[in-house]
Amino acid sequence: MRIKCIVSYDGTQFHGYQIQPMKRTVQQEIESALTKLHKGQNVKIYASGRTDAGVHAVGQVFHFDTKMNIPEEKWPYALNRYLPEDIVLQEAKYVPSDFHARYDTTAKEYRYIISQREIIDVFKRNYSYHFPFRLDLTAIRRACTHLCGTHDFTSFCAAKTEVEDKVRTIYSIQVIEEGTDIIFSFKGNGFLYNMVRILVGTLLNVGQGLTDPDSIPSIIEGRDRSLSGKTVPGHGLYLWKVYYDN
Amino acid sequence: MRIKCIVSYDGTQFHGYQIQPMKRTVQQEIESALTKLHKGQNVKIYASGRTDAGVHAVGQVFHFDTKMNIPEEKWPYALNRYLPEDIVLQEAKYVPSDFHARYDTTAKEYRYIISQREIIDVFKRNYSYHFPFRLDLTAIRRACTHLCGTHDFTSFCAAKTEVEDKVRTIYSIQVIEEGTDIIFSFKGNGFLYNMVRILVGTLLNVGQGLTDPDSIPSIIEGRDRSLSGKTVPGHGLYLWKVYYDN
Repeated sequence: MRIKCIVSYDGTQFHGYQIQPMKRTVQQEIESALTKLHKGQNVKIYASGRTDAGVHAVGQVFHFDTKMNIPEEKWPYALNRYLPEDIVLQEAKYVPSDFHARYDTTAKEYRYIISQREIIDVFKRNYSYHFPFRLDLTAIRRACTHLCGTHDFTSFCAAKTEVEDKVRTIYSIQVIEEGTDIIFSFKGNGFLYNMVRILVGTLLNVGQGLTDPDSIPSIIEGRDRSLSGKTVPGHGLYLWKVYYDN
Repeated sequence: MRIKCIVSYDGTQFHGYQIQPMKRTVQQEIESALTKLHKGQNVKIYASGRTDAGVHAVGQVFHFDTKMNIPEEKWPYALNRYLPEDIVLQEAKYVPSDFHARYDTTAKEYRYIISQREIIDVFKRNYSYHFPFRLDLTAIRRACTHLCGTHDFTSFCAAKTEVEDKVRTIYSIQVIEEGTDIIFSFKGNGFLYNMVRILVGTLLNVGQGLTDPDSIPSIIEGRDRSLSGKTVPGHGLYLWKVYYDN
């Protein structure tokens, strides 16, 4: 039987999601917990996509196949006993055997949290990006309207990105003020390597008056990484939700 | 000149506040940062009181004496460069040379955060106590009215407590619901060793119907640690604010 799982993790102590030799990764920890639960029988998982070092997940999704007969609602309790404390299985559901956590996604939402406190909040240091500089949110929101839609996002992905097709659709960008935090929510059909972090870096430039919000269309058209802002740190980024049909 | 400092720290990686040989403590880290800032000249600090392993502080207060001539508002920037990232100086103020962070306190506020989510929130695991069981807040609030006031709190402090006088005054206890969290706020003239954690353990028993809220007066009068609830974990506890006259 195939199971779809929603998992949250604190990225602080991981070298990202994907297995790498000799490094602590989310995938390796989950596969090792599942293998223990399956009494040593190797279990491989397939996630909606990778996350980088330090990046968090509220609702990462993965699937795997099992012969264990555990009711859906018991799976979190069964697996969480074997998982390290910085990974928590939130939900499990039996799905048809052709479901695929990566290929069936219809949209993804990422959030990026900026803390605007003058002095850093010690409890948020690994969970938001401390950026105590004044931001013009009106200019940022204007830039966002230019970013939404279907574009070639070459200017907004790491230069070393290997995928050929860099056209993606951003469905919406929300800029939410919550106390001293500013939360950017990006929903799109897919995101390139470092894309969200470069989008945020560019929007921070706009908010500081370093980049004109109406220059975004020409930055997009330039298809040149050097035209956009810097890559902001991973610890402010969350894979928030992965969407599927039904 | 004497300086009064307000400092926040994430207690997760500390063996408590007070210096102990071979262990990482808050006091040792602050004194070592101050000593570096004073170019190797030893600086000793005096805090409002200790906190235990895993216990956090939002507003711990300490004082120290210095000959360095730094404007008040620059002190956080000066010292935070030398502090580890889990200790953050929030505020510094020059005070009269007879001010004492420990002896001059008029009140202290501690908060204890309970998370009632069914499955643990991975981002709060070190910052709240996961207690996913139903609680009767009306009964808890009734028990709180019995705890407030001036009492001998022998039943609510660790058996090994050495202080002779166990009479303390609790000015107020608030029970705040915030999303899936329940926050207990205790304000009093002073708290005995483990007192807040035992008070919370006892209130959780009341909330679960294991202890009658109206049995609190007899638990207090019994002056016997075995009559009260268990000591809840340190990682849900925050030294929230220390009060002084003016």
